[in-house]
Amino acid sequence: MPETKYKKTEDFNEWYNEIVELADLCDKRYPIKGMNVWRPHGWKLMNHIDKLIRYEMEKTNHQEVNFPLLIPESLFKKEEEHIEGFGSEVYWITHAGINELEERWLLRPTSETAMYPIFSLWIRSHADLPLKTYQIVNTFRYETKQTRAFIRVREIHFFEAHTCHTDFEDAERQIEEDKGIAERLFKKLCLPYIFSKRPEWDKFAGAHYTISIDVLMPSGRTLQLGSIHQYRDNFSKPYEISYETEDGKHTFCHQTTYGMSERILGALIGIHGDNKGLIMPPEVAPLQVVIIPIIFKGKEKKVIDACDKLCKKLIDNNIRAEVDKREITPGNKYYDWELKGVPIRIEIGPRDIEKKQIMLVRRDTGDKKPVLQDSSVQTIKDEFIKISDNLYTKAKKLLDENIHRVNTIDEAKDKKGIIELPWCNNEKCALEIENVLDGNTLGEPITDNMKNKKYTCPLCGKTAVTWMRYAKTY
Amino acid sequence: MPETKYKKTEDFNEWYNEIVELADLCDKRYPIKGMNVWRPHGWKLMNHIDKLIRYEMEKTNHQEVNFPLLIPESLFKKEEEHIEGFGSEVYWITHAGINELEERWLLRPTSETAMYPIFSLWIRSHADLPLKTYQIVNTFRYETKQTRAFIRVREIHFFEAHTCHTDFEDAERQIEEDKGIAERLFKKLCLPYIFSKRPEWDKFAGAHYTISIDVLMPSGRTLQLGSIHQYRDNFSKPYEISYETEDGKHTFCHQTTYGMSERILGALIGIHGDNKGLIMPPEVAPLQVVIIPIIFKGKEKKVIDACDKLCKKLIDNNIRAEVDKREITPGNKYYDWELKGVPIRIEIGPRDIEKKQIMLVRRDTGDKKPVLQDSSVQTIKDEFIKISDNLYTKAKKLLDENIHRVNTIDEAKDKKGIIELPWCNNEKCALEIENVLDGNTLGEPITDNMKNKKYTCPLCGKTAVTWMRYAKTY
Repeated sequence: MPETKYKKTEDFNEWYNEIVELADLCDKRYPIKGMNVWRPHGWKLMNHIDKLIRYEMEKTNHQEVNFPLLIPESLFKKEEEHIEGFGSEVYWITHAGINELEERWLLRPTSETAMYPIFSLWIRSHADLPLKTYQIVNTFRYETKQTRAFIRVREIHFFEAHTCHTDFEDAERQIEEDKGIAERLFKKLCLPYIFSKRPEWDKFAGAHYTISIDVLMPSGRTLQLGSIHQYRDNFSKPYEISYETEDGKHTFCHQTTYGMSERILGALIGIHGDNKGLIMPPEVAPLQVVIIPIIFKGKEKKVIDACDKLCKKLIDNNIRAEVDKREITPGNKYYDWELKGVPIRIEIGPRDIEKKQIMLVRRDTGDKKPVLQDSSVQTIKDEFIKISDNLYTKAKKLLDENIHRVNTIDEAKDKKGIIELPWCNNEKCALEIENVLDGNTLGEPITDNMKNKKYTCPLCGKTAVTWMRYAKTY
Repeated sequence: MPETKYKKTEDFNEWYNEIVELADLCDKRYPIKGMNVWRPHGWKLMNHIDKLIRYEMEKTNHQEVNFPLLIPESLFKKEEEHIEGFGSEVYWITHAGINELEERWLLRPTSETAMYPIFSLWIRSHADLPLKTYQIVNTFRYETKQTRAFIRVREIHFFEAHTCHTDFEDAERQIEEDKGIAERLFKKLCLPYIFSKRPEWDKFAGAHYTISIDVLMPSGRTLQLGSIHQYRDNFSKPYEISYETEDGKHTFCHQTTYGMSERILGALIGIHGDNKGLIMPPEVAPLQVVIIPIIFKGKEKKVIDACDKLCKKLIDNNIRAEVDKREITPGNKYYDWELKGVPIRIEIGPRDIEKKQIMLVRRDTGDKKPVLQDSSVQTIKDEFIKISDNLYTKAKKLLDENIHRVNTIDEAKDKKGIIELPWCNNEKCALEIENVLDGNTLGEPITDNMKNKKYTCPLCGKTAVTWMRYAKTY
């Protein structure tokens, strides 16, 4: 049985780097930096996360599409801010076989510039709106910072929803729907998060405004898991996405996007895991229950049969279960499945069969208890809820204890996590505070923000208009 | 209601080109030739095909992985024949942002050269074998021939299984398993096919031998849907995939691959469709039953309720069903769903409700009959089987009537479809026959091949050793 070298509680970053490979999530030895191999367990997990996303998209009448990866340079350059924001981060294809291309193509860093010329063909009249689409694809960004599995990579497993609306208000309603999607999705993943409205200088290239979804990792750094953008008509004008209104006028659409990535998996690993490995929330665990036969000589068949029978019963009740029949010791099996984060382990031995019971072990607490065979399905379903609640509560505690609303830079200086300071709305002040705190601006809270003018900017002393968040970020 | 301009029975190619857009499968207006946009219905269909593939892979203990898209040039060049075969067909990335890369990267045309260096790290001992993996990803080939939706594209939706074995015999067993997978999969898709062992000069670059899976399209041309390759140790040597045997020796693995693509969708469209549009086999139809309310004034609620009730019952019985409540005429709805190929249409009007019945219309035959509400689930399931049988039988007839086993080039000349001629095993003769027939060699039959030496090569007159197939191909 391999030994984990690092402890989460002692060296989070090294623990994270080690666990992603030990738990069969990815292989970082591929010869291009930041492009990792998805191993079977990692890919299964990501697919289960995608399934939850697709469920939310279907429920809200988004349609899944799939656009080409490659974008001609001329299309990409139509929206000025966008190319400025991404120009230095894209990969360029210049040759096909031995021929030089007439025009360079780039690998999508995100798909606005691939989709919008086609949207302009799809949308003719108000009856075509709203257009709500999404795709889950590979995108590419030339990261120059240090890469980290699932957190900062160069080939990104990316979800992007793109919507078109008749006007600003309808686009705003979409953003409200998007927030609801985040709420339901991240609840299932047991991940508490904060919404922040990014400052002007840090919004998405081309956006009217950007709301980011950030979580707090145990290292005290925040990790951005997604963002929701209001584009207004910033893209629809250069890409000519217009429609005929009911009274025959032609007007430009208003657009929104919603992006998330494999960072969700990074957050699951980092926030829920422990020194023994991953802990997967039941909703997303590829395997929810692993059944381990405890075998003594002469009783093999009886025990295996009992395990198979239980397994079938669980599967019939929509529980993802499996019997581990490998010829290794139970201890080795425990180690393996704890590493991979399977939420519940069931042990069945000859004595359990006599007592018509099974032994149930929770991955998150290690608690072990006997359960009567007859009530196994219901008990397991109840335990799933308890596990989810426990994971969420622990993560929420971490987040809450590390958001500090203070008035002065001095008070902020010794705090770990997320700092909220009054802000006067002057970019220079925020950037200077970033410097002093050695952190980044996350943006303003979108709820529970400053309600009166009694605070002053800790840097320039002018009246503050909002709280501004700062944190060290991934 | 838009009119289809072309008839399948009159101009197959133009009908195909039109129907892929009319049926909401793809948009060909993306500004890079051969890179099309997957529209919602097309993408759903492809996902259902992928689901059937994943089902077969899981059943045979293959594990899904996901490797990076980009391959460094030096890795790609390790197997000589492979680079010769693909070198002129790949796209090259030369720049990241404004920096020129130290080494060029290419977009995978297939993933041998990305996977095998990592397989060499994963495989240490005989206990690690067999290694059975697969992935479903986007691959890229710089096609210079005329492109055609789903049939000849430059960004390909690609399935590839890669396996490693202790020896040649175990790899051969894998190929037998692969054939079984093809049999089950294509039966569900109602697609009869032929296996051909490709001639030496036309096998996959680097393979020991290649078995192709071809179907016959109504145009008389064959379409290759997939291929199964025996690599022997041709790749494991340059990529150093070796293992320690039980008695401590080090030896190279034997490998196989299995590839299929979105061409399967192309075959479904072309082979099953008719002048009205697509006809989807029930196993793969995203929507299996569409329910159309036939509404008369004053009876709206009753009819809609009956439709909803049936829909729920079908869904509860694992039938993919939907009620079309759009405010357009029933006739327009029929047109729409016939175009998209939904296998069964149900109509419910006030009189049907009185009679406790529903009207069932088959997409493949147009047959319409009343069915008692109480037996609707079973009848629909029975009809699915009849539709599948009918689609398969029609396609099998087309294939069988267009395979011609003849002895002379003169007999071959006026035949449409697939020609089988005796062959002496001399490459020159086959290539000359290709010229004369204006077709391509498909390869030798792998079953029912020549059993005695009484035939002669129609070109050189020497004793023939096998039948060789020729056809016009896509």
